[in-house]
Amino acid sequence: MSVEAKFKNLGIDNAPGQEVRQQAADALNALVRGDALPGALVDFSHGDVDAFTPPPGSFEAFTLAVEAGGQQAYTEYRGSADIRAELAVHLSAFTGADIAPDLGVIITPGTQGALFLAVASTVSTGDKVAIVQPDYFANRKLVEFFGGEIMPIRMDYLGSDEQAGLDLEQLRAAFAAGARTFLFSNPNNPTGAVYSADEIAQIVALAKEYDATVIADQLYSRLRYSGQSYAHICASDLSENKILTIMGPSKTESLSGYRLGVAFGSPEIIARMEKLQAIVSLRAPGYNQAVLRTWFNEPEGWIDERIAAHEAIRDDLLAIFRDAGMATRTPQAGSYVFPTLPKLAIGLNDFVKLLRQQANVIVTPGTEFGPHEHSIRLNYSQDHQAAVAAAHRIVEMAKRYSAE
Amino acid sequence: MSVEAKFKNLGIDNAPGQEVRQQAADALNALVRGDALPGALVDFSHGDVDAFTPPPGSFEAFTLAVEAGGQQAYTEYRGSADIRAELAVHLSAFTGADIAPDLGVIITPGTQGALFLAVASTVSTGDKVAIVQPDYFANRKLVEFFGGEIMPIRMDYLGSDEQAGLDLEQLRAAFAAGARTFLFSNPNNPTGAVYSADEIAQIVALAKEYDATVIADQLYSRLRYSGQSYAHICASDLSENKILTIMGPSKTESLSGYRLGVAFGSPEIIARMEKLQAIVSLRAPGYNQAVLRTWFNEPEGWIDERIAAHEAIRDDLLAIFRDAGMATRTPQAGSYVFPTLPKLAIGLNDFVKLLRQQANVIVTPGTEFGPHEHSIRLNYSQDHQAAVAAAHRIVEMAKRYSAE
Repeated sequence: MSVEAKFKNLGIDNAPGQEVRQQAADALNALVRGDALPGALVDFSHGDVDAFTPPPGSFEAFTLAVEAGGQQAYTEYRGSADIRAELAVHLSAFTGADIAPDLGVIITPGTQGALFLAVASTVSTGDKVAIVQPDYFANRKLVEFFGGEIMPIRMDYLGSDEQAGLDLEQLRAAFAAGARTFLFSNPNNPTGAVYSADEIAQIVALAKEYDATVIADQLYSRLRYSGQSYAHICASDLSENKILTIMGPSKTESLSGYRLGVAFGSPEIIARMEKLQAIVSLRAPGYNQAVLRTWFNEPEGWIDERIAAHEAIRDDLLAIFRDAGMATRTPQAGSYVFPTLPKLAIGLNDFVKLLRQQANVIVTPGTEFGPHEHSIRLNYSQDHQAAVAAAHRIVEMAKRYSAE
Repeated sequence: MSVEAKFKNLGIDNAPGQEVRQQAADALNALVRGDALPGALVDFSHGDVDAFTPPPGSFEAFTLAVEAGGQQAYTEYRGSADIRAELAVHLSAFTGADIAPDLGVIITPGTQGALFLAVASTVSTGDKVAIVQPDYFANRKLVEFFGGEIMPIRMDYLGSDEQAGLDLEQLRAAFAAGARTFLFSNPNNPTGAVYSADEIAQIVALAKEYDATVIADQLYSRLRYSGQSYAHICASDLSENKILTIMGPSKTESLSGYRLGVAFGSPEIIARMEKLQAIVSLRAPGYNQAVLRTWFNEPEGWIDERIAAHEAIRDDLLAIFRDAGMATRTPQAGSYVFPTLPKLAIGLNDFVKLLRQQANVIVTPGTEFGPHEHSIRLNYSQDHQAAVAAAHRIVEMAKRYSAE
């Protein structure tokens, strides 16, 4: 594949945070219906770290690292041995798996960095990879960038709140057709669905049957709402070298400005990831790595408070969208919600642009996550009142541009 | 190419900073000659940021960014627009080229990040790439990772201190044979050679003749010794879209712990690099980016003092190696020196391991940079006295293990 072809499909214009690079178009103005809807800007494309701030101690951990100097600036490519040892203890306790500090953990520049290295280390030209629809947009792009072939697996996320709704028969068919990697986020991005223990058990059984590797992006697995159970696939009896789990403190803990992620599990995949990290970015920034010392180490009650605050916003947004007749899955974890729009008289990308222009609301189009042209994704880790007001504006805009 | 094959050649065991992952071997002990040579540990594999500390203001710039919150945490993938604008002014003044802030600059996680994105954006399977020997070890690994074919270009770095010694006829032959990318570091890593204005002019003429793209890694181009001239290839009349320059504050300015780099020049290549950065690591850490505000903005005299201190170390090391009969190129810039060892009775990797074990000195084997099994690379950005003492120990070790 030529470089030109490789980059042609790698669009980012509609990616979260890139709206600033879009050019205003006269064509868009011709579509406008009604007046502007006043209200403070809410950027639902990512969480607002001014509304939900980092845990106490993170900046202090960074400061100590700068003072420590060279020893902290130049870590191994897989990250500081001391910090990996601390992480292994926390992550073992959190997941119930036995995580080896030296061979089983790598620190990366964000969970995005972990995901990139993980896909690069498992997928090559022509390899078939099972990917959920909908799921995080980079999954598809990464597989395509490395020349892999995507086997989409449907998720009926509106069917039930008791399970994610993965089409397990389709997953079996993908494995039977040759897929040897299954990449999925749990909780699911963009719907907030959590896979049930039964679904995880069936994924494990299929992976065993077909000797497949499972990459689980568990970025949001700490932010689980009241009474929500959670099955860590790394704690299953799938062979250690066949599972890689990815997490990081960018979302729930609002530490995105430090770009930190971790991958843990398969020593084989992690060894490859480290080799590649050496030529991709050497290492996660040495000083930043020290901020991970505050992770899973927050003050008593801090995480519970954060979860409760998000649950309250979630409940308000769900009520607003459902009142308007917009079918919406109940997010069981995380801070994404994926409401269904009415059939629109204009294209989804135009609607999203007009939302920004007329209603001061930024959302991510559903098409970033799969063939979901009637949905938008919101990250509701925002100021509560501002988020509620913005959700009302979205409903009003959906009515205005409805085809019905 | 299978994933296994792809990672087989991507060795990092001898890479700078990874020595900690090497296992002690009994076989090595059998080779030992003589007693240990006492002395403080000197790690020449990278600069000592405790000996040469970051410029004043860098940590304060970071602190302000953390206080700025979300606005600085979530920049565009190519980096903060404000900071890119400031960089464009400084880099235009430094290089003499006219650098466009919006389209012509991308901020990356270290210069390694820039190099990775640049090679990924220009090289695909089967593409021929001209690479200098010796040159930075990641150049070769990156081209191979993306399935490119390396066309090695000799550099006679011991021939003259007036020019780098690039074999321009071989470069022409590589272009004639189909190479369309030339990737080189200037000053050269590992030798410290600076390309003469005439060499740069000839590279430009050849690139024009063959419509080739030039990627210039100028990481060390600020640290130039007394009276040393320097030709920025980006200031030549080679078409804008055919040149990409890479720099960063990790070395001369000792800011490696923040992992910051920039690439500037070709808007076409930079647009691709941004698309790829979106799935590799999203962006250089938002808070860290603000540290670039202090770059090219140091206190009066700071950089001159730093250059003078390095020049003094350089002169002492050159005298020590030359007195011992070890042919060594005079570094005209940067802080690398690449002395030639006598013919050894043991392999280079064993010698390097014994240097560490017996003499408390870490160096990088010449074979990381090309077929240079009789050289070692030292980064002499170290405490002056410690570096001099360690160089004497290297000479003693070279005598002990000489085959002559």
